[in-house]
Amino acid sequence: MPTSLPWPGELRILLPDWMPAVVDPDRAYRTDDQKVELAIALSRENVLRGTGGPFGAAIFEAESGRLVGVGVNSVLRHNNSVLHAEMVAFMVAEARLGSYTLEIPGGPDHVLATSCEPCAMCLGGVLWSGVRRVICGAVRQDAHDLAFDEGPVFPESYDYLSARGVTFTFGVRRAEAREVMATYQRQGGPVYNG
Amino acid sequence: MPTSLPWPGELRILLPDWMPAVVDPDRAYRTDDQKVELAIALSRENVLRGTGGPFGAAIFEAESGRLVGVGVNSVLRHNNSVLHAEMVAFMVAEARLGSYTLEIPGGPDHVLATSCEPCAMCLGGVLWSGVRRVICGAVRQDAHDLAFDEGPVFPESYDYLSARGVTFTFGVRRAEAREVMATYQRQGGPVYNG
Repeated sequence: MPTSLPWPGELRILLPDWMPAVVDPDRAYRTDDQKVELAIALSRENVLRGTGGPFGAAIFEAESGRLVGVGVNSVLRHNNSVLHAEMVAFMVAEARLGSYTLEIPGGPDHVLATSCEPCAMCLGGVLWSGVRRVICGAVRQDAHDLAFDEGPVFPESYDYLSARGVTFTFGVRRAEAREVMATYQRQGGPVYNG
Repeated sequence: MPTSLPWPGELRILLPDWMPAVVDPDRAYRTDDQKVELAIALSRENVLRGTGGPFGAAIFEAESGRLVGVGVNSVLRHNNSVLHAEMVAFMVAEARLGSYTLEIPGGPDHVLATSCEPCAMCLGGVLWSGVRRVICGAVRQDAHDLAFDEGPVFPESYDYLSARGVTFTFGVRRAEAREVMATYQRQGGPVYNG
């Protein structure tokens, strides 16, 4: 990046350094429950270790359950409003596969597990990422109860993605995902999308 | 980032190296026309120099017209479906200001100029970025004519942002913005959000 311009020379995005303590990259995450369990574990660690907001996400091969990428909310840590957990997971998975889409001809389908229903930005991002399915822990109302705005998402938004072959499952381990969000609130964590 | 996990050690995002040849960071971009002109110039250079899709964006202080950040579509160059021009501009501007929002108490309002109406992801991103106004060149239909999907954006989406104080202006220098998109199509540029 040109140094003669007044903006940063590059943007660097890192996952928190506690990641290896929480993630087993060699495990097969076969069920919906196992996939969302990991996403929630990521959200929990992000809160308990003070590295960001109460949201985690992971991307898997749909059939094998192989873990392809992870993300945690990194808005505060990186001063970057784009870095919701889902967006970080898309970027990590695509970098790993060397592809701007996870929908690779002849390749496996990919699924996103997220600790909470995606906001408007991330729902748009789902479409461009090429994941074929999204499994969510907490739902929109849970985020709203915590004073996080989820943005312009409507029933028609889901119809739109559904028409393009992306399916959604909501409320897997919802109480557990909500509890992480409540912990964040009790700790007085900042609400950056208020 | 942990090296024992199988994903990339870090994500690095760079602007193209032609940026100083196109952008004057010291100029005051006072009018809507001047702001969108820069966004379109960025989209054009991105196509002509082969660094990405036909989309550019820039963020300014609303009153002074001071340039705060720029972005070009970097999806193909970085294998990253998140890196639409607007998203890059948000990240660059926020990194420069050291803030996850451009809505800083007591600070100036910020405006986003973009060569084309934002897709669903970027429209959500607008809300979280803290810009107070968006000025667009080409419109949704122009992107669709080029076979780019814009995602689930509805009249209610704009109502939602409007209720939160974000205003929109469409069609500034539209023909010029469309012409860049047509050039990309004539060159056989890949449509990554098909």
